[in-house]
Amino acid sequence: MPTISLESHHKNEMIEVTDRVRQAVDKSGIKDGIVHLFTPHTTAAITINENADPDVVHDMLTILDRLVPLSGGYRHLEGNSAAHVKSSMFGCSETIPIENGQLTLGTWQGVYFCEFDGPRKRQLQIRILPL
Amino acid sequence: MPTISLESHHKNEMIEVTDRVRQAVDKSGIKDGIVHLFTPHTTAAITINENADPDVVHDMLTILDRLVPLSGGYRHLEGNSAAHVKSSMFGCSETIPIENGQLTLGTWQGVYFCEFDGPRKRQLQIRILPL
Amino acid sequence: MPTISLESHHKNEMIEVTDRVRQAVDKSGIKDGIVHLFTPHTTAAITINENADPDVVHDMLTILDRLVPLSGGYRHLEGNSAAHVKSSMFGCSETIPIENGQLTLGTWQGVYFCEFDGPRKRQLQIRILPL
Repeated sequence: MPTISLESHHKNEMIEVTDRVRQAVDKSGIKDGIVHLFTPHTTAAITINENADPDVVHDMLTILDRLVPLSGGYRHLEGNSAAHVKSSMFGCSETIPIENGQLTLGTWQGVYFCEFDGPRKRQLQIRILPL
Repeated sequence: MPTISLESHHKNEMIEVTDRVRQAVDKSGIKDGIVHLFTPHTTAAITINENADPDVVHDMLTILDRLVPLSGGYRHLEGNSAAHVKSSMFGCSETIPIENGQLTLGTWQGVYFCEFDGPRKRQLQIRILPL
Repeated sequence: MPTISLESHHKNEMIEVTDRVRQAVDKSGIKDGIVHLFTPHTTAAITINENADPDVVHDMLTILDRLVPLSGGYRHLEGNSAAHVKSSMFGCSETIPIENGQLTLGTWQGVYFCEFDGPRKRQLQIRILPL
């Protein structure tokens, strides 16, 4: 199974992986189907959102931090309970249609690996299912 | 690929599309598999929730607005950062099993296109994968 | 379609179902593909998160309760609007790759049925798609 290796450099970060996903779809030779992305981590996520203005990603991470404060009398001693909740809110998988060999992403959509407890080395698994 | 065209009329809105998804599944002739729904927009989402009492949808949109305020010192100049976060929280895709030609939705479940930055014209893509 | 029957015992609860999902994958004999999990309820969800330290689950449910208060002047008379929002935030479906007959879950990942309006009897549907 194709896998993308990543390295995050900040506590919270959204790393765009659209091109690497496109390359995996190209390489598979599958023209029509879906691509399934999965990250095997519990303090990370995969999401699809705007990749035109980097301020969107900045605002999204800021809003999430306000919603789920880093500390809040949590029991889990590792101190990353907020990251676990963010992971489940955005979700550790995403699925995108493939048509004529292309992802059917919208004009402003990019695929992001979301780091919520970095910096760390991370993985993203790619499964491509034909129609 | 079957596509549903939609038009939203409010800033925030949940538009039920269950019947249109059912029609696409019927037309495909596929009896067992999954239907994958994907919206190519960054300020919209797809979700499955109650379609019996319209107050549920009203409350859900109200709660989301309280959680992610429309303005909050965001950097993104288009002023729709809240909508981008809501999009990633609910997600731009959904997947439902098909069994004996029917969606296996529960009694109270309906499929919703979620608008978070309307009114706009929108698209929803439908991919049906056989088992 | 394989289905898991569950019984929740609390208002909010995350019930691990990883082993039962693994058993369904084993029984299918499918070695490479994806497993799709779907719950036909509107006040429940499926998520993947840490299964090593039970404090993580405790903190996640606490954080969600702080985010989406049980009462807040909601219109829906059943009084479970908060549970409906939590359901859409975590999502009623999840998809995991299968490789060499195994779920490709990370070391710390477990699959959870999330109850947000228990105690109740619940269902979780399992669809396994070969590559």
